[in-house]
Amino acid sequence: MSLATSAPHSIDRATCAALDAADPLARFRERFALPEGVVYLDGNSLGALPRATPGHVERVIAEEWGTGLIRSWNDAGWFDKPAVLGDRIAPLIGAAPGEVVLGDSTSASLFQVVTAAARIRPGRRVIISECGNFPTDLYVLESVQELLGEPGRPLERRLIDDDGPTLDEVLDGDVAVVVLTHVNYRTGRMYDMAEVTRRVHEAGALMVWDLCHSVGAVPVELNAARADFAIGCTYKYLNGGPGSPSFIWVAGRHHGVARPPLTGWHGHARPFDFTVGYEPADGITRFRVGTPQLLAVAGLEASLDLWAEVDLAELREKSLRLTELFICLVDARLAEWGIEVVTPRQSARRGSQVALRAVGTLDAGDGYALMQALIARGVIGDFRAPDLMRFGFAPLYVTHTDVWDAVAALEEILRSGSWREPRFARRGAVT
Amino acid sequence: MSLATSAPHSIDRATCAALDAADPLARFRERFALPEGVVYLDGNSLGALPRATPGHVERVIAEEWGTGLIRSWNDAGWFDKPAVLGDRIAPLIGAAPGEVVLGDSTSASLFQVVTAAARIRPGRRVIISECGNFPTDLYVLESVQELLGEPGRPLERRLIDDDGPTLDEVLDGDVAVVVLTHVNYRTGRMYDMAEVTRRVHEAGALMVWDLCHSVGAVPVELNAARADFAIGCTYKYLNGGPGSPSFIWVAGRHHGVARPPLTGWHGHARPFDFTVGYEPADGITRFRVGTPQLLAVAGLEASLDLWAEVDLAELREKSLRLTELFICLVDARLAEWGIEVVTPRQSARRGSQVALRAVGTLDAGDGYALMQALIARGVIGDFRAPDLMRFGFAPLYVTHTDVWDAVAALEEILRSGSWREPRFARRGAVT
Repeated sequence: MSLATSAPHSIDRATCAALDAADPLARFRERFALPEGVVYLDGNSLGALPRATPGHVERVIAEEWGTGLIRSWNDAGWFDKPAVLGDRIAPLIGAAPGEVVLGDSTSASLFQVVTAAARIRPGRRVIISECGNFPTDLYVLESVQELLGEPGRPLERRLIDDDGPTLDEVLDGDVAVVVLTHVNYRTGRMYDMAEVTRRVHEAGALMVWDLCHSVGAVPVELNAARADFAIGCTYKYLNGGPGSPSFIWVAGRHHGVARPPLTGWHGHARPFDFTVGYEPADGITRFRVGTPQLLAVAGLEASLDLWAEVDLAELREKSLRLTELFICLVDARLAEWGIEVVTPRQSARRGSQVALRAVGTLDAGDGYALMQALIARGVIGDFRAPDLMRFGFAPLYVTHTDVWDAVAALEEILRSGSWREPRFARRGAVT
Repeated sequence: MSLATSAPHSIDRATCAALDAADPLARFRERFALPEGVVYLDGNSLGALPRATPGHVERVIAEEWGTGLIRSWNDAGWFDKPAVLGDRIAPLIGAAPGEVVLGDSTSASLFQVVTAAARIRPGRRVIISECGNFPTDLYVLESVQELLGEPGRPLERRLIDDDGPTLDEVLDGDVAVVVLTHVNYRTGRMYDMAEVTRRVHEAGALMVWDLCHSVGAVPVELNAARADFAIGCTYKYLNGGPGSPSFIWVAGRHHGVARPPLTGWHGHARPFDFTVGYEPADGITRFRVGTPQLLAVAGLEASLDLWAEVDLAELREKSLRLTELFICLVDARLAEWGIEVVTPRQSARRGSQVALRAVGTLDAGDGYALMQALIARGVIGDFRAPDLMRFGFAPLYVTHTDVWDAVAALEEILRSGSWREPRFARRGAVT
């Protein structure tokens, strides 16, 4: 059944239940420990807990740490975990074995790759990104600009924006690196990775992709797109646990020349020789920094067991079915209340999340109270200032019925006006 | 009883058992889940597992992540954990509230503070460290030298060494920063923090202390010593778990001016405004980078509960009793087999670990096989190339009887020659 060709009024909750019954990924939902009475649409921010994770982490703590103690660095393979798990992330992003490694926080990993990329184009003094990028990416770029520039003369930054300038308008022979997020964290808009990379390469620059909102949400083909560097997050769609380690991908052709700035001993060619001078390891290993946070790594390991079973084509198909259903229902049932869809309707330009905005008689900032009222009813999305209600559709555990229930809940909240209760009013930070 | 004044031959296992019975810290040993039949003397590398940790981590996973989901960023205080746990580390290092925050890996945190320190002395082009520093510190310095220098002209590095040059010989008006490890990772030698800091300040430079082998091992008084910056590790004596997060300390007087290079969004003044430009937070917060690895943070949190009960004066007293006992027994029983103590005998110059070396008829590298033979007997220390057998004495769970048993085991191995068995011969890396 194609939703796009169905009349919206022909969709009811039974239609959604039928879609769930026919869903080839339905079996994954029971692999997650979702709380009763919750429709969880914030897996784009923090993924749900796989049922296998607590037992795995408990075993790592009791057996590997408690009993194995220091011996586990060898016996339990601790030292190699960042590379071993990197190899298990590789098929999710179209990367080859030996091209991916776990990092520290996403921000630190972005610092690693942007600095390394810019060093490969030393004569060029411009870095391009975009206004709507996740802020930490822009903050990290500011630091790279200063550190790689000369005193009083940082590298230049050019930011593209939806209202212009466009990428083509700012790309020229001075550009060293372009840093873009594949799926936008606010709107869910997705770039054509291959096409953007091609244009960047035509200008002689290198392409760094931030995959935080892509990995586990949409199929990614880094090598097919001829991209240069990428980083990503494992605690969103990959369900690695709160703050689980980032990953770093570097195209094989750059391995011999890339020079990351965080030159910790785990990136050394022979870390246990304890030499005085730094000598980078071959391959992706030189992007490692220090001792990995192994309890967090254990959380990620458990979730990657589950990802090994996922067919990414099925994942994308279901993701589009969910987001299309949501958009369709919002149009049909919420437009009259002043709710509009911000996310692109063209499926090729959409990740696995949809953003809504309050318009018309509503104030844009009313989205905050609307989201709080939704959360109070057990429908969990989030709000991003100044005006976006975000809903993430993690295909492994979100059902079509969840989508129905979320829209029905929002309709009821709008109809009743319950979101105007003082308890939902804005105060303080929203995380 | 003073061991120093006892005749070594008057010490027997019963003496050690009596010392254990009188030990005010003895009650802590049962708080750790040490495996049966193991004498664990490698807590200077990876601390033992507190019994309370598995339950705490399990609760964070099941309740905060599994049930709380995204709401736990506010409801469970996730966002503030790096500052809250930093404040709990503060009393262990003589720091004030608001001066300590958790970081990523130790290497990344050292990069943060050394860069920030050198930027406070922009006219000076020299960084001092020492040959015997933990290698990652030196590797990180190489990167800072390059990034803060001009193209083709990195900052200069001067390394002091036991055989010279001395600190006084290399300190002059060109020095921006001195980076030293308080307790040496190989030999256990400890610097006089206040005295070294005073000399560094006399030269107009700033002092960065690496506390990896100090925190939880010896009392540290950063503010009393007027130090400037420090970093440390929580997975050794603090028992936070394998790879648990590092911490960063910055003296309050530098908070307004320090500019760290990893400018992630968790260090921003208003992270949830999602502004395009970076504006550093006040205080120590600006040293935060990205999302903390919260399962690893949970491990640390459990161990800090335990540390809140520890009297650091008692800790130091027991630590010195253990290391003195070990040195005394090695002298009395192992010297004849060619084993010598490398660690300073003067207690004020010793941390909580002791290094031994094979000399005389033994080859220096024989320490490797000797350590493997010890480990096979359940006495776990480690070997650091080229020639050191390291033994760490974590005062919360190592007993005087452990010390006796370790020396007795090594004596038996030397006497029987069992360490010459091929299975103990060196191969591959030792972690």
